[in-house]
Amino acid sequence: MLRVAVLGAGRIGKIHAANVAANPNAKLIAVADPFGNAAASLADQLSCESSLEPTSLIERDDVDAVVIGTPTDTHVSLMLHAVASGKAVLCEKPIDLDITKADAALHEIERLNGRVMLAFNRRFDPSAQQLRRSIDAGSIGDVRQVIITSRDPGLPSREYLKHSGGIFRDMVIHDFDMARWLLGEDPVELMATASRLVDPTLTDFDDFDTVMVQMRTATGRQCHINCCREAVYGYDQRFEILGSAGMLQNENLRQTTVRRWTRDETEAGDPLLNFFLERYADAYRNELNAFIAAVESGSPMPVTPFDGRQALRLADCALESALTGRAVTV
Amino acid sequence: MLRVAVLGAGRIGKIHAANVAANPNAKLIAVADPFGNAAASLADQLSCESSLEPTSLIERDDVDAVVIGTPTDTHVSLMLHAVASGKAVLCEKPIDLDITKADAALHEIERLNGRVMLAFNRRFDPSAQQLRRSIDAGSIGDVRQVIITSRDPGLPSREYLKHSGGIFRDMVIHDFDMARWLLGEDPVELMATASRLVDPTLTDFDDFDTVMVQMRTATGRQCHINCCREAVYGYDQRFEILGSAGMLQNENLRQTTVRRWTRDETEAGDPLLNFFLERYADAYRNELNAFIAAVESGSPMPVTPFDGRQALRLADCALESALTGRAVTV
Amino acid sequence: MLRVAVLGAGRIGKIHAANVAANPNAKLIAVADPFGNAAASLADQLSCESSLEPTSLIERDDVDAVVIGTPTDTHVSLMLHAVASGKAVLCEKPIDLDITKADAALHEIERLNGRVMLAFNRRFDPSAQQLRRSIDAGSIGDVRQVIITSRDPGLPSREYLKHSGGIFRDMVIHDFDMARWLLGEDPVELMATASRLVDPTLTDFDDFDTVMVQMRTATGRQCHINCCREAVYGYDQRFEILGSAGMLQNENLRQTTVRRWTRDETEAGDPLLNFFLERYADAYRNELNAFIAAVESGSPMPVTPFDGRQALRLADCALESALTGRAVTV
Amino acid sequence: MLRVAVLGAGRIGKIHAANVAANPNAKLIAVADPFGNAAASLADQLSCESSLEPTSLIERDDVDAVVIGTPTDTHVSLMLHAVASGKAVLCEKPIDLDITKADAALHEIERLNGRVMLAFNRRFDPSAQQLRRSIDAGSIGDVRQVIITSRDPGLPSREYLKHSGGIFRDMVIHDFDMARWLLGEDPVELMATASRLVDPTLTDFDDFDTVMVQMRTATGRQCHINCCREAVYGYDQRFEILGSAGMLQNENLRQTTVRRWTRDETEAGDPLLNFFLERYADAYRNELNAFIAAVESGSPMPVTPFDGRQALRLADCALESALTGRAVTV
Repeated sequence: MLRVAVLGAGRIGKIHAANVAANPNAKLIAVADPFGNAAASLADQLSCESSLEPTSLIERDDVDAVVIGTPTDTHVSLMLHAVASGKAVLCEKPIDLDITKADAALHEIERLNGRVMLAFNRRFDPSAQQLRRSIDAGSIGDVRQVIITSRDPGLPSREYLKHSGGIFRDMVIHDFDMARWLLGEDPVELMATASRLVDPTLTDFDDFDTVMVQMRTATGRQCHINCCREAVYGYDQRFEILGSAGMLQNENLRQTTVRRWTRDETEAGDPLLNFFLERYADAYRNELNAFIAAVESGSPMPVTPFDGRQALRLADCALESALTGRAVTV
Repeated sequence: MLRVAVLGAGRIGKIHAANVAANPNAKLIAVADPFGNAAASLADQLSCESSLEPTSLIERDDVDAVVIGTPTDTHVSLMLHAVASGKAVLCEKPIDLDITKADAALHEIERLNGRVMLAFNRRFDPSAQQLRRSIDAGSIGDVRQVIITSRDPGLPSREYLKHSGGIFRDMVIHDFDMARWLLGEDPVELMATASRLVDPTLTDFDDFDTVMVQMRTATGRQCHINCCREAVYGYDQRFEILGSAGMLQNENLRQTTVRRWTRDETEAGDPLLNFFLERYADAYRNELNAFIAAVESGSPMPVTPFDGRQALRLADCALESALTGRAVTV
Repeated sequence: MLRVAVLGAGRIGKIHAANVAANPNAKLIAVADPFGNAAASLADQLSCESSLEPTSLIERDDVDAVVIGTPTDTHVSLMLHAVASGKAVLCEKPIDLDITKADAALHEIERLNGRVMLAFNRRFDPSAQQLRRSIDAGSIGDVRQVIITSRDPGLPSREYLKHSGGIFRDMVIHDFDMARWLLGEDPVELMATASRLVDPTLTDFDDFDTVMVQMRTATGRQCHINCCREAVYGYDQRFEILGSAGMLQNENLRQTTVRRWTRDETEAGDPLLNFFLERYADAYRNELNAFIAAVESGSPMPVTPFDGRQALRLADCALESALTGRAVTV
Repeated sequence: MLRVAVLGAGRIGKIHAANVAANPNAKLIAVADPFGNAAASLADQLSCESSLEPTSLIERDDVDAVVIGTPTDTHVSLMLHAVASGKAVLCEKPIDLDITKADAALHEIERLNGRVMLAFNRRFDPSAQQLRRSIDAGSIGDVRQVIITSRDPGLPSREYLKHSGGIFRDMVIHDFDMARWLLGEDPVELMATASRLVDPTLTDFDDFDTVMVQMRTATGRQCHINCCREAVYGYDQRFEILGSAGMLQNENLRQTTVRRWTRDETEAGDPLLNFFLERYADAYRNELNAFIAAVESGSPMPVTPFDGRQALRLADCALESALTGRAVTV
């Protein structure tokens, strides 16, 4: 029975805490959050202890593992603290917005033989798992092209955007990770283009809302990513993989399977699941369970800090490419 | 906080018990099952008490409501015992295989002002709820025709079939309930035809494996039901409603949304969810939650013993029609 | 090169005439229609002769075959005249609204060794052909259930309805033919129910607008047909065949494959092809080509007068069942 | 009645000739092809004259318009000859593989006030027309991203490839035209990547088989194109347009709408229409009809030589980008 503390009681922390509580091989010891009664309220709901102080939980003897769902700028220090304390870690993405800091953290984790998993939840979505499994089973032969569509239902608040690190590090980073995972190889060249088609005032943050990225691996496999901060029809998350022997695609998830036929529309579907908390509820649960299982069995972490570092590197390259109008060697 | 006991620890009892345990407004007090360590094992898993004796639980002071998931021939006595003890009841379908006994039970429940909900779980499937909600919202105008497709993935064991009450009372009864619910009216005329196309030896039990039923309400609304005990492509559960202003349909549920394109097939989907426990997992949870909510709020039961009685009556009429080759006035 | 005359220059006659003209193995000699300049206008368009008098064309030496697309009450006399004149015949359905007359016509055709094909065009739809071919190839094993959905976009004029012979003989007759063809066996028992949900004043003609039919063959195969004179979302023509090894379905045809995603609808499709002339354009062409090919090669007619007679018999049985509320032995 | 000569009796010439013959406002005068009896055989089939010599047809007084479907290196000289002779021209893409020659031809056409339409047939596909019409009607607001998927069923012969001009000028040129047409603006920046994943020996021709292109317009609209010379599941031609108020997509066309459900696959579709002649049969017919209509009415040509020139320019930029690994300003 793995004893777990969850740091951060925001929307992501809540998800992780509930999944820990529901995992039969884990016990939720405590949750921590410095803001108001967020931790206390969550602890009350899940029958565990609470704290306003994340670091105190890390050092507790009755805590074997910590899940880090705090603001990005605290990830590295909490992660390293936990590793130094001999605790296993599941850390939300990104490691840090600054790749130099991320690299230093990786170095330290390695030095300490730390057990850290990075929380790229989308790999654990049942359809994504099935895509990877089908590729591994050879059902479409050699991968040639990966097409990733990733659109949010609407623009976040300006406050969120100001501290987000920009669309590539905040939003597309997930797609960079999926690209690497589905390609089965690391991109060596990247070209990006970025526009402000939703909100021209994003110039205030030097940010963009609509982007495309094109990448190539050393063996010539290709990947396209398109992202937009606003898709009025809903949260759009699709993958397509063309291989030498076939193609795989997944579809979006809807609340129900009902279709409507009227004078004005035929076979119209219900709305898509609203946003990532709903769309990836299964993925978050599977991710947490995979973390618990890896820690308990001592097997390799399914997603590593290096994966987090690589996705961040691709995000940096994409920003550079978009700003300079040049292809970037990764 | 409603205190609940679950009678029966078979596959249905397990589902209900887990859903009680997960409901924040309910507390699972105990589970009972006379067979081996079924109850003990389930109780251990869900941290509640267990008993080999259902009736003892019914009378406990710390039990407010009972969920009955025992064999059909025990439903009436347990239900009436619980009602007489002032407990709210959620009872699995059917009330009884014998409509005379069912009618007597209804009479007694009414006399005692009993609070009983019948467990027609399919009404609580999110897509079914959306169908009913859309009809109520007028999105397809007046209902004209309801088409119900209901096929099991494979024939049950001979042991199961022997005590099932026959395909109409065991399997089609769910579809009769959905028919009434979606039509919004009670059928007044019914015609059925029944065949043995999966297993000719079902003559041993005077049972059938492939049936069609056609019904008409007093205002002329029509309903068709087709059932088969074996669909090799999986558990097939579809509804279609034609109205004066449009049509509604739902689709089956699959494990993932992945589609496969190869030399031999285009857009081929993943397998359907295997059988009712997986397919209707959400429905069972919603059903239990609706029961808890109705008991707590004192509002009318969303499915009544009368609904159970009416579905059983339609099943009896269908069998009569299939055997005589005549239309039956309900 | 088969020399063909087309009798009738209404909407069906026009289709057949154009298809004759486009068939490289046939030559359109003339078209006939007693009404106004219908024949002259069509002949002008297709560069052939015209006549106000159908019978005169039948006897011409330079006519090898006639296509009959005239009003129903002229079918038998024109057909027999053509057969007696040694001409091959493609005759629109139904042979006659009166089965006694139809039987007499069959008897006469047989006596004269007549070469007559009945125009059940839907069998020649590419998707229908693929359904039959797949069944024949064993892809779904033994047929168990056939489900036919057949809905018109809107109620015809009262004038049309008055002379139509009623919904079963006018509209459902196509579905009866498809049922026999897809079942691969003749129904032996039939139950029908009929309502007036679109237009209650159809009582004026003793007609109905919304019907369901349920049939069983001697080996126990089952078939359901649902029809409505009005589906506001368009002409709905679907088949589903459940077999021991799988299921086949076809979908409706749309003008384009475009799908629309907005705030209010996801994946909404374009309108269905409007009505039978558009929906079955390929089927009419394939049907005519099959007729020409059968005549030229001397092979058996792909659809026979007996097929026409059987569909009419089922229509009569359905009306009887709907009026009496009894199952009818075919 | 427009009198038309068709130059070239290969697979494209045959399509155009048949469409001319079927157009009620046009008359097919003659077809020409220098190779063997191609022209004679086609003329025989369509009841027109034939010639081994294209130029002789151009000058005939009874020819108002010519359709050019000859090898690419003859396009410019035939087109200019026809324009100089006062004939309207429908010319297959590309104008020429060399943009300098194309520009010179455009200049000459303009000087002579020539009436020339370039044959980008895909714009005339019913689904493509519906996409453009829906955008124009404002159904998805302002266009933000266009995603084009364009994959051939299999690699052409080495002989074909040797003279094709390379994948960008031969295959992607269609997609460049569709990109411009759907974006509603000209791209100003382009990035391409190209691989040999189907056949590594394409190095022999300095050609590629798998490419991606990313483009941006001056207002920031974005477009992605992915192409592969081999998709084993068939000819894949899809468009997706994301706008500020919604998204539009089209689907591929299949031979029939039949879906198959078995133990191994659910809802598996029939094969896609094999290749461009089948897939774009309607588009070719609509294109020819649009040409005839534009000539007869004197209205502007729906696709101009400038459109052909711009697509060629994008192809050249793409090749340059793929070879240099740099973004190219168009």
